[in-house]
Amino acid sequence: MDENKWGTAITKVEPNHLLLRGYPISELIGRISFSQAIFLALMGKLPNEGGAKMLDAILVSSIDHGVTPPSCLAARTIASSGGPLNSALAGGVLAISKHHGGAIEDSMRLFKRAVERKKDTKKTPVETAAIIISEYRENKMRLPGYGHRFHTKDPRSHRLFAIASELKIADAYVEMAKVIEYQIDKIIGKKLPLNVDGAIAALLCDMNIPVSLANAVFIMARVPGLVAHVFEEQTMMKPMRHINSKEHIYSGVPERKLGDGEFDWD
Amino acid sequence: MDENKWGTAITKVEPNHLLLRGYPISELIGRISFSQAIFLALMGKLPNEGGAKMLDAILVSSIDHGVTPPSCLAARTIASSGGPLNSALAGGVLAISKHHGGAIEDSMRLFKRAVERKKDTKKTPVETAAIIISEYRENKMRLPGYGHRFHTKDPRSHRLFAIASELKIADAYVEMAKVIEYQIDKIIGKKLPLNVDGAIAALLCDMNIPVSLANAVFIMARVPGLVAHVFEEQTMMKPMRHINSKEHIYSGVPERKLGDGEFDWD
Amino acid sequence: MDENKWGTAITKVEPNHLLLRGYPISELIGRISFSQAIFLALMGKLPNEGGAKMLDAILVSSIDHGVTPPSCLAARTIASSGGPLNSALAGGVLAISKHHGGAIEDSMRLFKRAVERKKDTKKTPVETAAIIISEYRENKMRLPGYGHRFHTKDPRSHRLFAIASELKIADAYVEMAKVIEYQIDKIIGKKLPLNVDGAIAALLCDMNIPVSLANAVFIMARVPGLVAHVFEEQTMMKPMRHINSKEHIYSGVPERKLGDGEFDWD
Amino acid sequence: MDENKWGTAITKVEPNHLLLRGYPISELIGRISFSQAIFLALMGKLPNEGGAKMLDAILVSSIDHGVTPPSCLAARTIASSGGPLNSALAGGVLAISKHHGGAIEDSMRLFKRAVERKKDTKKTPVETAAIIISEYRENKMRLPGYGHRFHTKDPRSHRLFAIASELKIADAYVEMAKVIEYQIDKIIGKKLPLNVDGAIAALLCDMNIPVSLANAVFIMARVPGLVAHVFEEQTMMKPMRHINSKEHIYSGVPERKLGDGEFDWD
Repeated sequence: MDENKWGTAITKVEPNHLLLRGYPISELIGRISFSQAIFLALMGKLPNEGGAKMLDAILVSSIDHGVTPPSCLAARTIASSGGPLNSALAGGVLAISKHHGGAIEDSMRLFKRAVERKKDTKKTPVETAAIIISEYRENKMRLPGYGHRFHTKDPRSHRLFAIASELKIADAYVEMAKVIEYQIDKIIGKKLPLNVDGAIAALLCDMNIPVSLANAVFIMARVPGLVAHVFEEQTMMKPMRHINSKEHIYSGVPERKLGDGEFDWD
Repeated sequence: MDENKWGTAITKVEPNHLLLRGYPISELIGRISFSQAIFLALMGKLPNEGGAKMLDAILVSSIDHGVTPPSCLAARTIASSGGPLNSALAGGVLAISKHHGGAIEDSMRLFKRAVERKKDTKKTPVETAAIIISEYRENKMRLPGYGHRFHTKDPRSHRLFAIASELKIADAYVEMAKVIEYQIDKIIGKKLPLNVDGAIAALLCDMNIPVSLANAVFIMARVPGLVAHVFEEQTMMKPMRHINSKEHIYSGVPERKLGDGEFDWD
Repeated sequence: MDENKWGTAITKVEPNHLLLRGYPISELIGRISFSQAIFLALMGKLPNEGGAKMLDAILVSSIDHGVTPPSCLAARTIASSGGPLNSALAGGVLAISKHHGGAIEDSMRLFKRAVERKKDTKKTPVETAAIIISEYRENKMRLPGYGHRFHTKDPRSHRLFAIASELKIADAYVEMAKVIEYQIDKIIGKKLPLNVDGAIAALLCDMNIPVSLANAVFIMARVPGLVAHVFEEQTMMKPMRHINSKEHIYSGVPERKLGDGEFDWD
Repeated sequence: MDENKWGTAITKVEPNHLLLRGYPISELIGRISFSQAIFLALMGKLPNEGGAKMLDAILVSSIDHGVTPPSCLAARTIASSGGPLNSALAGGVLAISKHHGGAIEDSMRLFKRAVERKKDTKKTPVETAAIIISEYRENKMRLPGYGHRFHTKDPRSHRLFAIASELKIADAYVEMAKVIEYQIDKIIGKKLPLNVDGAIAALLCDMNIPVSLANAVFIMARVPGLVAHVFEEQTMMKPMRHINSKEHIYSGVPERKLGDGEFDWD
């Protein structure tokens, strides 16, 4: 009888009883964080404490990057035409593609290849990195995850790696990412610092997240940022305005520091 | 000079320096959770501890509801045709609309109206609920947030309200939501329990989240669930299969309980 | 047995046999034009010759309006991020909403209301138009379909109405649209010429196309224009470029006239 | 000054003056058909009479294929959740991808490769087809454009090729498509008839339409069919119904023939 049925391993839905990856949802509510639930939904098991903190850090690092990314422009453009919030978000998600967010996936493939090569050839990370860099140069290909059109020293990459060290998440892939950064400078004589895409890529590899979920991690992280932009567009801007990302200024609160006082609820 | 510029208050982007709502992103990474960052992005300030836990609980409660909701079917259908993950997610987000997720917004409007009416008329919650229920009956309108086509006693609603009590989030709107539930039974003689949409609606009201962000909260919560479904479709199913949601079975792990052992990392 | 089945009246699909609204598709191919097939698919019957020509004229009039409309910007932005053509088109379609394309629907409602009022009150079109205009002024509402932010005398409106006269399509709604235009000038003392949205709205009313298909007509017309823009973006532009619609110039062929020589095939 | 500007060759927009590929739009309205305008928008020149008729035939052939294709299911699912028409269409367009519509592009690549090989090797079409078929078999790849999961003799392919012969559009690519079909039968001993995707692919090649526009041709053709389905869903069906494509029946008009009487206007 069941041979005509198709299986799903994510959620079991029965009247008054819901299981997410086996756990009653009513037990999860209030006991695990949203990012733990994300990990559970995607990976089929709960992360340990370090893994949960690392995922939180990754998601926080990518939540927004202002008004210039194409996802923000597509979302604001659709909002400006009068479309509902979910249409604007869908448009934003459609712009998270090869050239925007996609470097995480490319970079994961690079690190997977490099670490595998290291194992196969029994060479050191430094030797492996040198070979990989040469191959990319010969094929005139850019090394994905290195360099940024805007940030010369991405404030997010270092912080993410520092946390990964503390949490003991950093392993072979983070090591390889660092060695490649160092070797680029040494071999090519050019600073091409690991950017946030590259840092996240190395961390996702060390966390055993599949390469084909790289884009999803970025999308989940960025959707809240897009919500903030769409809401701002809908509530503060005239419909059908000319949107030129270069003509914007930051009009928000001045720089501030995390402190107990800021957590006040009203 | 700046009169031709438009302002955005969300993120300040300068070379090697990023501020989210005034906070350096590198300070936030590793110190706040993803749901705290979501609250910050949307509301312009960090939640207090209770608010952060409540938002986590709300997001966890809505992360997935199996294969039958239209968002899941739209996303799986697009994935099955060979589209990339972000296309499938965008299609899923487009299905989170008036009849799916939309009850949160309708329900928030109901509770806002009821609490405002209570204040204006200086009547008790019980009296106000009775008036509101009568008006809906006269206009033959359904009370949004009450009753569920599947669950007679939604396992999520009670849990969310229990947590709201513990965290002292529950206030005038949660009270009104409960009184209306009670009065429906008393006046109409019919059990129409508050469903998860209604429970979330009351909580968002008591948390001062704007009504026009209701759909966004649901979308942010559900996107990870959609990712899990799209990934399952892409990795486990034949392309272009006939997708009938009624023909599915749950093929995942058996029911289990939260326990330390489950948090193992591998 | 059939009580569990749902009906669709559009296309019958049997092995080696396809009926569109009752007609074998193999009979339609080569004998009717695309716009006749569009009319058939939507309305369930073929248009007469005049109706077919009018629909062609409407669709041609709306096929493109350059790079400034939000649908074009959303589509190009998604294309620029590396998304596939169908993602970019979907994003463009999402931007065809209340403030972009939506005036056709609003305008149809205006004309429907005006013509109905004329019938109910047995007043003349001139009297009815005066009443309607006054009501909009009192409520401080804009008359949809009149005035354009760019064109003071839209080259498309007059041409569409001239063709409608020739084809004897123009009837009560086109008349009302013209009378309202005239009366706006007379009553308010301001030229607010009927724009292309208003002209199409009046024509769709006289063609008995339902109001709820107004947006669809515009979308069907504009999708080919969006295809041209996405293709140009994908083949001629650098990915992730800064897209500012105000900084564009027209770089195409100089103005030319329709003539036999232009129909050469190569 | 212009060095900072970007060029677009599609539409010139000046006040009261619009040029599509050089032609004043007001001249085109009423004088060319929608499919001629589509060709003009995409290819930068008008088609000759045969080209226009061929494009009409191709677009008509693909306008709808009932309720089973993923584009229709995605669009109806989104409509059923209460989303607006343009959201449902966008969802439908997102499902026109690799496995649905995508065979046209794959098939064009096959025919391009085959005809190029024929020229390079100076072999006959029959010899070239045999080599190509062998290569696909060796690599265990399916020949795109041949065979159909539903139609054994697609009613659309033959009609399209008959028209192409009449109009003298059929050339080297149509010939190659036919020879491959014949050779599959001869070499493999299996009937794998050219399907409608393959037929359209060969025609687009002979019409010099670029391979990267293949999906666009299918999308432009199918959008009106999707509009009909979304409209039917919105006007005839209960929201949030369980949509199982296999449980549908055709409830439209009985089979009829093209005849003058059917073109009546009302």
